Amino acid sequence: MSAGSPPPLRWWGWGEMTVPVAAGLLTLLRDETGAPTDRVTTVPRLRDVQLPERELPRAQHRALVEIVGGFHVRDDAEARVRHAAGRSYVDLLRLRSGALDDAPDAVVHPGNAEEVLGVLRACADGDCAVVPFGGGTSVVGGVAPSRAGKAGLIALDVDRLDAVASIDATSHLATLEAGMRGPRVEAGLGARGLTLGHFPQSFEYATVGGYAATRSSGQASAGYGRFDAMTRGMRMQTPRGELAVDALPPSAAGPSLLQVLLGSEGTLGVITDVTVRVRERSAVRHAAAWSFESFEAGADCLRRMAQSRLLPDLARLSDEEETRVNLAMARGRAARVATRYLALRGQPSPCLAVFEWEGDGDSVGARVRVASAALRRSGAVTLGAAPAKAWLRDRFTGPYLRDSLMGLGVLVETLETATTWSRLSALRASVERALRESLATDRSTPLVGCHLSHVYEEGASLYFTVLAAQDAADPIGQWLRAKRSATDAIVAEGAALSHHHGVGQDHTPWLTAAVGSEAVAVFRAVKQHVDPAGVMNPSKLFDGAG
Amino acid sequence: MSAGSPPPLRWWGWGEMTVPVAAGLLTLLRDETGAPTDRVTTVPRLRDVQLPERELPRAQHRALVEIVGGFHVRDDAEARVRHAAGRSYVDLLRLRSGALDDAPDAVVHPGNAEEVLGVLRACADGDCAVVPFGGGTSVVGGVAPSRAGKAGLIALDVDRLDAVASIDATSHLATLEAGMRGPRVEAGLGARGLTLGHFPQSFEYATVGGYAATRSSGQASAGYGRFDAMTRGMRMQTPRGELAVDALPPSAAGPSLLQVLLGSEGTLGVITDVTVRVRERSAVRHAAAWSFESFEAGADCLRRMAQSRLLPDLARLSDEEETRVNLAMARGRAARVATRYLALRGQPSPCLAVFEWEGDGDSVGARVRVASAALRRSGAVTLGAAPAKAWLRDRFTGPYLRDSLMGLGVLVETLETATTWSRLSALRASVERALRESLATDRSTPLVGCHLSHVYEEGASLYFTVLAAQDAADPIGQWLRAKRSATDAIVAEGAALSHHHGVGQDHTPWLTAAVGSEAVAVFRAVKQHVDPAGVMNPSKLFDGAG
Repeated sequence: MSAGSPPPLRWWGWGEMTVPVAAGLLTLLRDETGAPTDRVTTVPRLRDVQLPERELPRAQHRALVEIVGGFHVRDDAEARVRHAAGRSYVDLLRLRSGALDDAPDAVVHPGNAEEVLGVLRACADGDCAVVPFGGGTSVVGGVAPSRAGKAGLIALDVDRLDAVASIDATSHLATLEAGMRGPRVEAGLGARGLTLGHFPQSFEYATVGGYAATRSSGQASAGYGRFDAMTRGMRMQTPRGELAVDALPPSAAGPSLLQVLLGSEGTLGVITDVTVRVRERSAVRHAAAWSFESFEAGADCLRRMAQSRLLPDLARLSDEEETRVNLAMARGRAARVATRYLALRGQPSPCLAVFEWEGDGDSVGARVRVASAALRRSGAVTLGAAPAKAWLRDRFTGPYLRDSLMGLGVLVETLETATTWSRLSALRASVERALRESLATDRSTPLVGCHLSHVYEEGASLYFTVLAAQDAADPIGQWLRAKRSATDAIVAEGAALSHHHGVGQDHTPWLTAAVGSEAVAVFRAVKQHVDPAGVMNPSKLFDGAG
Repeated sequence: MSAGSPPPLRWWGWGEMTVPVAAGLLTLLRDETGAPTDRVTTVPRLRDVQLPERELPRAQHRALVEIVGGFHVRDDAEARVRHAAGRSYVDLLRLRSGALDDAPDAVVHPGNAEEVLGVLRACADGDCAVVPFGGGTSVVGGVAPSRAGKAGLIALDVDRLDAVASIDATSHLATLEAGMRGPRVEAGLGARGLTLGHFPQSFEYATVGGYAATRSSGQASAGYGRFDAMTRGMRMQTPRGELAVDALPPSAAGPSLLQVLLGSEGTLGVITDVTVRVRERSAVRHAAAWSFESFEAGADCLRRMAQSRLLPDLARLSDEEETRVNLAMARGRAARVATRYLALRGQPSPCLAVFEWEGDGDSVGARVRVASAALRRSGAVTLGAAPAKAWLRDRFTGPYLRDSLMGLGVLVETLETATTWSRLSALRASVERALRESLATDRSTPLVGCHLSHVYEEGASLYFTVLAAQDAADPIGQWLRAKRSATDAIVAEGAALSHHHGVGQDHTPWLTAAVGSEAVAVFRAVKQHVDPAGVMNPSKLFDGAG
């Protein structure tokens, strides 16, 4: 990845890079899904986007200006559009439609934690809803501009909180301001020979505060842990005041406040900084691709590796359909040779896995040897480093490609969950069936791929990618029906409502069924305590739960 | 360890095994601390112990009998004495004194989760305080019989909840009822080739529910993790109803209820079962003792190993004074030879470390090789397996030895904390100074040893053991002054109020200073929600915080 920061998100999509759709994928989409891949949809001009009237009372606007200064309270159309939606497929459909049902009345950019606190207090006093805004990359409606009957609605953008506040190199701890994006974090730590090691697909745009607020998980979660597992301390501003957790080793001084703040998705307050465990940059990296004869064989092997503590630092296993799509996207000859080789080795429907180990030379060598032996015992076939390195090179391009696909009239979305190993196969079958049944038509079969990219001793996540022909008449309804059907299946299987995307607004209808009404009541009691006026991110998480 | 369960705790001390005080330790105690080690104190007979009158209203007693049956509501003197105290030094002084200020009015033994819930509801209705009781091994007043002005006080003993409820061998998960003690857990899992790997010093008597309620940490925490880190699910009965967390991989479905219940020390409800991650029993174990020239050198080496992920599964480093005491206790010739050998190798004041690696043969061998190279680079000297194996053999004998020492008029107690690596040396010096200054007299110098036995990338715990001449006139006041002085030092250094002993009643005066008044307020809001009558374990944790 680059040490510098990428340009801002396009207001209607991801970053400015244009990733073309590979010819092989175009063929697959045309032949199987029936998507009209020759029809190019256009995007309106920003100045033509229709926005609702601003409702913020004038006194409230003045109060905000007094706290952060007039320059940092924006209510122009661009500011409002850029804070009107996250980056789910439905968000992008709405943005591309050129007409938004709602948007914040204003966008406030506080310059420090004290200003954040002041804004929250002013909003609590003024009956003004606050949507905390980091990278704006939520795919579950986490930054949806829900007014919930309040007199006003602002987005509170933490983009000015973007410094490394402190580094304790001896203790491998760094305090990062909440608005820092992934590349800026890695650049700041890298200057000291350190790394955070958190690489979600949204790495280039998502922020530290967002990682914490949503319990994000990065691609190297096997080695570095989820973001919540690498978090040691935090400061959150709430309407009641600051909640601070000092960075200490795990302790027995009562329940964990940190674990109440993590995953709270802006409904309790605004995270202003996070103290994370950092590591020295690895001297050695070893990438390898292996192929399994089936997803079940691969999952079983990863389970054994996790349970024997032999996991690589990055591990990702694609199922048959995702492998097929990925091979179609790969450039010509190498992919054809690999396909033929694997068929000869008894894998006509291969499942590709990508692994990476890192560390110092001695321990990486030893770990690769022991893990490779386990892989061979499971019947996996090695494909060398090249396919793994290709995946690593393109690891952040998915959302760029989505923009290109949407421009071709393709429905493209992902969803994810997690469960224990003993229930993984049933869950995968059930969710896949729900998606296929919902999206299939007489003339069109969706492509539904799945991968497993976060592996634990007790289970794993499942990440589904869906490609289908977009229903031009009702593209939003088409996906919402499929999503509802898939989420019903997830909850019926007793699986996690989300592994790392979060709950946001989109998952709230299932939250009570997933975590239980008593858990919802406990966290509502916490919310009532810190945000009695109910201004923090209304309709998200427990606030929206039925 | 034995697969069977040891006999019950002595009512005035630990188990029935009598561990004699080694001659070398007797000499040290006499010469340095001035303890009158020839004076043997006696223990009263159980039937002579003075207890306060029972206050439980008759209607409340009847309500409890209706729920659990008459046989399971005990109010005889033995039941009351056995549930009147934990196992801190002060608890033992009070028990040995033969006069108890307070004790539960009755001890209730529910047979299942539904009965637990019934008892809690009856107590909430009847204004009766409930002290949840597992192994009764708390050393911080966690089971102190505090009435807090309630009409009655019962201990709720979970000893009848003692089965393995279920095992999911594929997912490496086991659901254990809360009253199971360590040996029973290991026997139940061992029959399936599995282990929990949780070995606190209280292993023989502490229960699964207690491990969870106090965020216990076992000796092999480097390999197996703390108990809170191995917990995946839980059921807790509260006066409001059951709080259940299903066992799933980590997820992004909001804040963690599990992490609110862990460490709640009976103040929210009674844990009835816990689902834990289990592992296959290790095929290979490798024990080794090494010696460092100083505690700082050893701590620095362990820090580097933790930060490079080269830690053994068990790691324990004693400081100079603890090493000196341990060598004095070790049997004659081998210890003398080791002392002379280390002096020749440039370690006149050695600090011994004990390590154990476990797993399958391939990975243990590789890990031992890489770690041994790191140890040698740090200047550590290997002492082979024997001293490590001797420590492992005696790993649970500390509390037995304490009974013997108390019988000889010795003040013997421990306390623990944790902090980041960069603040570890200052913390150790500060706590040690506080203890020495508080306990030194004209004729007596205390022995204050310290070890580091729970190591993290960002820091470590410090565990202090104090041996001194008991002040026969005011033994309780003598220790409480020293403890207050040490805890003041811990809080002043910004360290953890407890690493694994918990807060209980004893640490409540410092809780607000340690975690902040806003955190206290958040958890009081949770408590108010689940226990509005305030009957759950009064005066513990946040309830007692100033």
